Amino acid sequence: MRLGIVGVGLIGGSFALGLRQQGLVSVVLGADNNPQHLAQAQALGIIDHARDISYLAAHVDCLLLATPIRAIAPILQALRPHLRPDVLISDVASTKETVIAQARHILGDRIAQFVPGHPIAGSHEGGPQATNAQLFEQRNIILTPLPENPPESIVQWQSLWSALGGVVHALPNAQDHDRIFAAVSHFPHLLASAYMDFMQEDTVCTKALAMGGTGFRDFTRIAAGSPELWRDILSSNREAMLSEMRAFAQVYAQWMQLMETQDDATLFHRLASAAQARRQWRMNDA
Amino acid sequence: MRLGIVGVGLIGGSFALGLRQQGLVSVVLGADNNPQHLAQAQALGIIDHARDISYLAAHVDCLLLATPIRAIAPILQALRPHLRPDVLISDVASTKETVIAQARHILGDRIAQFVPGHPIAGSHEGGPQATNAQLFEQRNIILTPLPENPPESIVQWQSLWSALGGVVHALPNAQDHDRIFAAVSHFPHLLASAYMDFMQEDTVCTKALAMGGTGFRDFTRIAAGSPELWRDILSSNREAMLSEMRAFAQVYAQWMQLMETQDDATLFHRLASAAQARRQWRMNDA
Repeated sequence: MRLGIVGVGLIGGSFALGLRQQGLVSVVLGADNNPQHLAQAQALGIIDHARDISYLAAHVDCLLLATPIRAIAPILQALRPHLRPDVLISDVASTKETVIAQARHILGDRIAQFVPGHPIAGSHEGGPQATNAQLFEQRNIILTPLPENPPESIVQWQSLWSALGGVVHALPNAQDHDRIFAAVSHFPHLLASAYMDFMQEDTVCTKALAMGGTGFRDFTRIAAGSPELWRDILSSNREAMLSEMRAFAQVYAQWMQLMETQDDATLFHRLASAAQARRQWRMNDA
Repeated sequence: MRLGIVGVGLIGGSFALGLRQQGLVSVVLGADNNPQHLAQAQALGIIDHARDISYLAAHVDCLLLATPIRAIAPILQALRPHLRPDVLISDVASTKETVIAQARHILGDRIAQFVPGHPIAGSHEGGPQATNAQLFEQRNIILTPLPENPPESIVQWQSLWSALGGVVHALPNAQDHDRIFAAVSHFPHLLASAYMDFMQEDTVCTKALAMGGTGFRDFTRIAAGSPELWRDILSSNREAMLSEMRAFAQVYAQWMQLMETQDDATLFHRLASAAQARRQWRMNDA
């Protein structure tokens, strides 16, 4: 199997490296708009050769687009004229409705070749040097297959992610996907970022930062993520985000009222319910 | 040095165990309203003997109140009639203004014996079996000394915490203390708890919980904390909390407006500023 990777950073590089270690690829071709990343990826044995997108579109079996979200549309446009009909394309974007709409528009009658994907894995570090063949082990991998995708194409991507230790879920409704990840990932990111933003407001907050403990450390860790990446995620998932933000604003107002009215009994009840939900969560061992 | 511990749980037990390992105590007496905890603490070598509060007040040199906040006032009331004038008292409560006001009222002319403290350490586990002599290593320990405290009493508590590896800070203004910890600890806890509360609202959220990754895990970890403990912290720091909550509500409204108006340039700017603040934070290695 000839694998193509557009974007040889953490996700794309780890995907290629893992499949290579499993002996599942004969050759890996990489494209990236950063020549230094391409050279690093080649030096690290992540890719065999650097080629441009049009070459990849004509010479690989599976092509993973592992770039920031806003690069996907231009890449699809660049590869469309050269796209061999048996090339299977997937992506790793954290939001799916926008990407799928763009892909439908650009790929047209070739849309069946695109099986949208979203691996729930990452790191605050990026680039080829952060790649890790074990990155996807035990991680959820979401596919949001299209009605046009032939079942064998879906199965092909499923097998590749499974070979890397990923736990693959199919979620054919992209709107559901985007609402779910707005709730469990994008909104927490916004909340942690807005909180760090807020903590720079005055001198009490600045003094407070120096006193942060392990709770503060963990609560704010995600706010260190790439602002480019997260601007793209938030803006490409705007509708679901706004819906989450409005709904949470109501819950927040309720908590503020509990504090204002000194309703400690209800405050206790809601703290207890939140604590129980978190303790029951599946990864609570970690 | 004869040490007394009221509350032989995680904090009190770890304090006693650490000082014992440093050879700094000749005897440790423990009081607790949970007889099982007292028996465990004795079996684990945390305390030498279980005694009641009035006995401790008359027979130890240093007395640490390591109980939930709302237990402090009744304990002070119980020990006041038996309090030898050379016993030094400290506490570990996460909020200080309320506790100090209660102590002034109850101890009266003996207030100089009370040096308020707040170790920034903890765990989601509690009880004598969670004790750990290394719990305070490299942790910030705040003392909020009173004008009445003789310098040598302050130094005494400082030495004990330092012997355990703690980094001791004096913050004589208890109101500052409470505002700082509202900002950096209590408000993040409320935000994480309100978010977990919110995540139980509808079926999308329930589905979403199963898809949470490492970001969700870390962001919500503090929400698993004891609801009793956190109700007490939040309600005893009500004024500072409400001030934080109102100020954050404004920042949150600004972020919502950025999303609504599709102002991605400002969104990027604020995400970048938050990310930079987090990356520069002193514990960002962890």
